[in-house]
Amino acid sequence: MLDIALLGTGGMMPMPSRFLTAMMGRLNGRLLLIDCGEGTQVTLKTLGWGFKAIDVICFTHYHADHISGLPGMLLTIGNSGRIEPLTLIGPTGLKKIVEGIMCIAPEIPFPIEYIEIDESTKEPICINGFCINGLVVDHTIKCIAYRIDIKRKGRFDIKKAEKLNIPRKMWSVLQKEGKVYIDGNIITDSMVMGEERKGISVSYCTDSRPVRTIPEFIKNSDLFICEGMYGENEKKQKAVENKHMLFSEAGKLASLGNVKELWLTHFSPSLSEPSLFVDNAKCIFENTIVGQDRMCKTLYFEDK
Amino acid sequence: MLDIALLGTGGMMPMPSRFLTAMMGRLNGRLLLIDCGEGTQVTLKTLGWGFKAIDVICFTHYHADHISGLPGMLLTIGNSGRIEPLTLIGPTGLKKIVEGIMCIAPEIPFPIEYIEIDESTKEPICINGFCINGLVVDHTIKCIAYRIDIKRKGRFDIKKAEKLNIPRKMWSVLQKEGKVYIDGNIITDSMVMGEERKGISVSYCTDSRPVRTIPEFIKNSDLFICEGMYGENEKKQKAVENKHMLFSEAGKLASLGNVKELWLTHFSPSLSEPSLFVDNAKCIFENTIVGQDRMCKTLYFEDK
Repeated sequence: MLDIALLGTGGMMPMPSRFLTAMMGRLNGRLLLIDCGEGTQVTLKTLGWGFKAIDVICFTHYHADHISGLPGMLLTIGNSGRIEPLTLIGPTGLKKIVEGIMCIAPEIPFPIEYIEIDESTKEPICINGFCINGLVVDHTIKCIAYRIDIKRKGRFDIKKAEKLNIPRKMWSVLQKEGKVYIDGNIITDSMVMGEERKGISVSYCTDSRPVRTIPEFIKNSDLFICEGMYGENEKKQKAVENKHMLFSEAGKLASLGNVKELWLTHFSPSLSEPSLFVDNAKCIFENTIVGQDRMCKTLYFEDK
Repeated sequence: MLDIALLGTGGMMPMPSRFLTAMMGRLNGRLLLIDCGEGTQVTLKTLGWGFKAIDVICFTHYHADHISGLPGMLLTIGNSGRIEPLTLIGPTGLKKIVEGIMCIAPEIPFPIEYIEIDESTKEPICINGFCINGLVVDHTIKCIAYRIDIKRKGRFDIKKAEKLNIPRKMWSVLQKEGKVYIDGNIITDSMVMGEERKGISVSYCTDSRPVRTIPEFIKNSDLFICEGMYGENEKKQKAVENKHMLFSEAGKLASLGNVKELWLTHFSPSLSEPSLFVDNAKCIFENTIVGQDRMCKTLYFEDK
């Protein structure tokens, strides 16, 4: 199972009643964070999932409201006792940007690893069970949408195991380590496992216009977290100019992508009651929910 | 009169119940800010003093908890409509640090002016009535304590004005502009004003050990805002190692400096109830107050 928390729902600037948009995933006790604006560490502290297990932080882009909390976050992760490396992922320019802003927090007690992604990146980045894919989307600066897939192995086929004369006591080792040796012969898990089963997928897109490639990228996601900077359809021109989306445009993407559930987030500071406009998305994609700070959901494998 | 607000009272990291330490002064509608950590713009938003009138931001030093909120703050000031220059003041290295962290907020719609201060800086920097003095104190990196003086002119001497045959209708112009011309002769305000009267002074010191030069620097301040990272006297060794102060050490400085009032701030995240330890300062300096987020005070000229 995968726990998801929407740490904040604001866009542009942090507000007394709304933290900046960021998302956290928790899998087997390990944490993945997407975006880290001013105050993200504070809302995470309230949520209570801890700091030490954050293995990876992905950035959609390098506007202040999505990254300015990084120096403080890394210091707090350091204070939590982490010494293991932490991976940062983001569009081209990541290392330069991070080294620029980290001049105010030069002493971090763990190594930082950088992975920059662009249009040419095809393979997912897999870290502690999180398989991370990126898609270049359309904002005022280079921006990435993310898809996190949690893979699920096939079933263990007892008949195959018995046919291969694998002792029962070695079954769990084989599943865990992927191979065992019997009488000098190697047995791999692929010899006794069925086909990979459907996993769990969460997609996250902010800040962007609704480009054509998004529906295929988010296809069949269990949860799609998407920006909805403006609730009113009348703000289309503003959305186009500022390279953001309307609620209705997010709903359209969710529908085209055949996702199970849509959470709206990244609301304009002027949008004090986003729920007033949710019908603009719901009339296109029924299962739309207006995001709230620290809204959580646990996603399970299908036949649990 | 001068309004003072303590925007936050936390040290090291922002907390759900405590913003990071920063101070704001308001004089004739103009604003001065000292320090700008992660979340300072949020607590200022709650306070409601606005963003557009911030003419100067002073930094004690460049640790993340004192400056990481700057990119977001400058963006928000820009969104408030400001186009006039804004002055940043801080220890040597200011421009380089600010240019480093501003890579995530490159488009600020007003010019930024930099003033770097060090041991050799003797003259105060006066901006819109705020006369700013700095003192190098003792932290793990170069750090400055500030003293803000609000000057008060002498009384207008009617007898002198009459003796000089200055027409009554020119009295206010003379006081406001500092000079008038009568029959081709220049009359300056110094010819009709009494001696400068006592003004208002506020001092601010965080993060530092209690060095010998502080009492003279803060001498006779109406308000002294000082760090008290640790409440318990038993934490002296920790305070020495981390270059911070105990409540009792702040009280000692306030007493030696003969200030009117002491506000404690910059509490360790582990210090959840600072008021439990206030007596450690009060037994040395009676008029000690434990700071709270957005605590305000209006300071008046003496004979108002």
